Amino acid sequence: MESHCTPETAGKVIRCKAAVCRNPGEPLMIEEIEVDPPKAWEVRIKIICTSLCHSDLTFWKMKAPIGVFPRIFGHEAVGVVESVGEHVEELIKGDIVLPVFQPNCRKCRDCMSEKSNACSVFGKKISPDMPRDGTSRFKDLKGEVLHHFVGVSSFSEYTVVDETHAVKLTPDIPVDKACLLSCGVSTGVGSAWKVAAVEEGSTVAIFGLGAVGLAVAMGARLRGASKIIGKKFGVTDFVNPATCTAEKPVSEVIKEMTDGGADYCFECIGLASLMQDAFKSSREGWGKTVIIGVEMHGSPLTVSSYELLRGKSVIGSFFGGLKPKSDIPLLIRKYLDKELSLDEFITHELSFQEINKAFELLQAGKSLRCMIWMDR
Amino acid sequence: MESHCTPETAGKVIRCKAAVCRNPGEPLMIEEIEVDPPKAWEVRIKIICTSLCHSDLTFWKMKAPIGVFPRIFGHEAVGVVESVGEHVEELIKGDIVLPVFQPNCRKCRDCMSEKSNACSVFGKKISPDMPRDGTSRFKDLKGEVLHHFVGVSSFSEYTVVDETHAVKLTPDIPVDKACLLSCGVSTGVGSAWKVAAVEEGSTVAIFGLGAVGLAVAMGARLRGASKIIGKKFGVTDFVNPATCTAEKPVSEVIKEMTDGGADYCFECIGLASLMQDAFKSSREGWGKTVIIGVEMHGSPLTVSSYELLRGKSVIGSFFGGLKPKSDIPLLIRKYLDKELSLDEFITHELSFQEINKAFELLQAGKSLRCMIWMDR
Repeated sequence: MESHCTPETAGKVIRCKAAVCRNPGEPLMIEEIEVDPPKAWEVRIKIICTSLCHSDLTFWKMKAPIGVFPRIFGHEAVGVVESVGEHVEELIKGDIVLPVFQPNCRKCRDCMSEKSNACSVFGKKISPDMPRDGTSRFKDLKGEVLHHFVGVSSFSEYTVVDETHAVKLTPDIPVDKACLLSCGVSTGVGSAWKVAAVEEGSTVAIFGLGAVGLAVAMGARLRGASKIIGKKFGVTDFVNPATCTAEKPVSEVIKEMTDGGADYCFECIGLASLMQDAFKSSREGWGKTVIIGVEMHGSPLTVSSYELLRGKSVIGSFFGGLKPKSDIPLLIRKYLDKELSLDEFITHELSFQEINKAFELLQAGKSLRCMIWMDR
Repeated sequence: MESHCTPETAGKVIRCKAAVCRNPGEPLMIEEIEVDPPKAWEVRIKIICTSLCHSDLTFWKMKAPIGVFPRIFGHEAVGVVESVGEHVEELIKGDIVLPVFQPNCRKCRDCMSEKSNACSVFGKKISPDMPRDGTSRFKDLKGEVLHHFVGVSSFSEYTVVDETHAVKLTPDIPVDKACLLSCGVSTGVGSAWKVAAVEEGSTVAIFGLGAVGLAVAMGARLRGASKIIGKKFGVTDFVNPATCTAEKPVSEVIKEMTDGGADYCFECIGLASLMQDAFKSSREGWGKTVIIGVEMHGSPLTVSSYELLRGKSVIGSFFGGLKPKSDIPLLIRKYLDKELSLDEFITHELSFQEINKAFELLQAGKSLRCMIWMDR
């Protein structure tokens, strides 16, 4: 009997496999690493599956000082709680959890407000390691520290996350579908639903049709938008930017298609120039541009102050304005009620050993989401 | 008896005095001019009083091609309808009216919507003359065309405006107080009330404390803001930018005063750098920056795309998001109910002959509003 029991690991260092990135842009190396036990307010999670998001790519390529290496990327995942640190009350060993990059302490002014999802205690500083003490729980077998990534680091068989970064799941949703709600899909759906509050009959233009953009389309359709310019997944119209010209840029084409500009424009890539296109494509009077993409060069956004005066607005948000702990369960409910479709976002499935292939597919624009299974 | 009657002027050219600007930045010249009768959908107005607004100064200084001369400035006024053109149904001779730069046709998609005040029929093109046919109703005695200004041109004893630019007043408000609602004060109050929708207990920072900025403060106070950073008129706190340093810019000072940034920031001058300060001073999570000032060099606004992602937003509007025909009567009601104070905005009164003194006082920052009486 005893030989079948999992040996007790709580409180001990766990040795396991992780996909470590040693230098910016280099392929990940599957290595043996050591994962410390969770400290107070932390949980250690055995990852079941994880997917690759564009922000992983962005930070994977980023050189110092913003890029820190060696590092364990990955921030879309589902796992099972292996052990918890002191003071953790919400989660216990065996809970299925969604680790999320967006913290949600539920106690600060922002977490208590209807208007914000930007946790003002844990969301302010972006530490390359654990949010409370700024130290890492990972090291390699030579003792070198391996850095965390946005509080998640799911490209490891085991990871440690702060309890403010973990959402408890009910077991009625398949883990790979839930995994999608960990970042990209939630961000897109939430942006249409919470940030823009798209209205019945309105027009929507989506700039960038990766998983996030397609999720915006799904969110906009859920909210009853009459025209969604983009492609696939129920999007109604499509503009190919390659056919636009200097004389007739994409914003002019969209203005024609929407009788003066879209009510809501979403930038889902993270390019300042595309943010400008989105702004220009929005309608005077009430056109709202929602910035979703993290600008990949850190560039600012420049818009016409005169067009702003004509009633346009710009708003941004992380994680689609959603509060992970209260809103992800609502999205799961919508999935279970078949209002929200998730299955078609998973275009590829890979074993953990094949993780670099997921990077190649996403970079080549061949995948929406690769589901990476840790035990395959 | 007949000798006491006003001679009938309807349908005829009227010869009267106007303050004509011949060249950018030059003092106005009081000249005899000719004012054509109103064409269809137009009304001719005898101005009673007019005040000087910063936008007059901005355009007065502006060289070609945006600046056009000779021109009759002035866009805050009250007058009495002398005659009306064909198809005018809302107004008749003898009505007291407030001419406004912001058109309000009441029939277009924007005028019909709760979300916009940017009339999509008459607000799109900014003609230097009459909005429907692009021609002028003014000429000098040599027959040279004198251009209109933003559909109003109130620095003339008589002017012609489109009916979409005229709001009928009830006689229960003194004309000089009503005059203030023609642009600056409405813009400020409306920005706090309609555009920002300032909430009870919120914090407000106002950049630029001319008449518009002080009117924002008044609007914010009406809405129950708990802290209003600025000065005068019930403003609660004051930052002197001169005491701020490179190490501790105004935005940092405001963040300290508001525990992380103001809920609402208003830019009331029209300087891109000040718009940036406003944005930086706004709170992450939900901070909203409202752009009110017309950027005086036509510069665009550049903001951090990362700060946008942290939940900040930027919105602009003309005329405080107000629809002149329906909202000005509401502001008048608030004035009569003593919720809105207007009297203290009038810091100086001048005769029409002294109009250049009004320019000097405003430029020197010595006046909020100079009331210029046409018959004095």
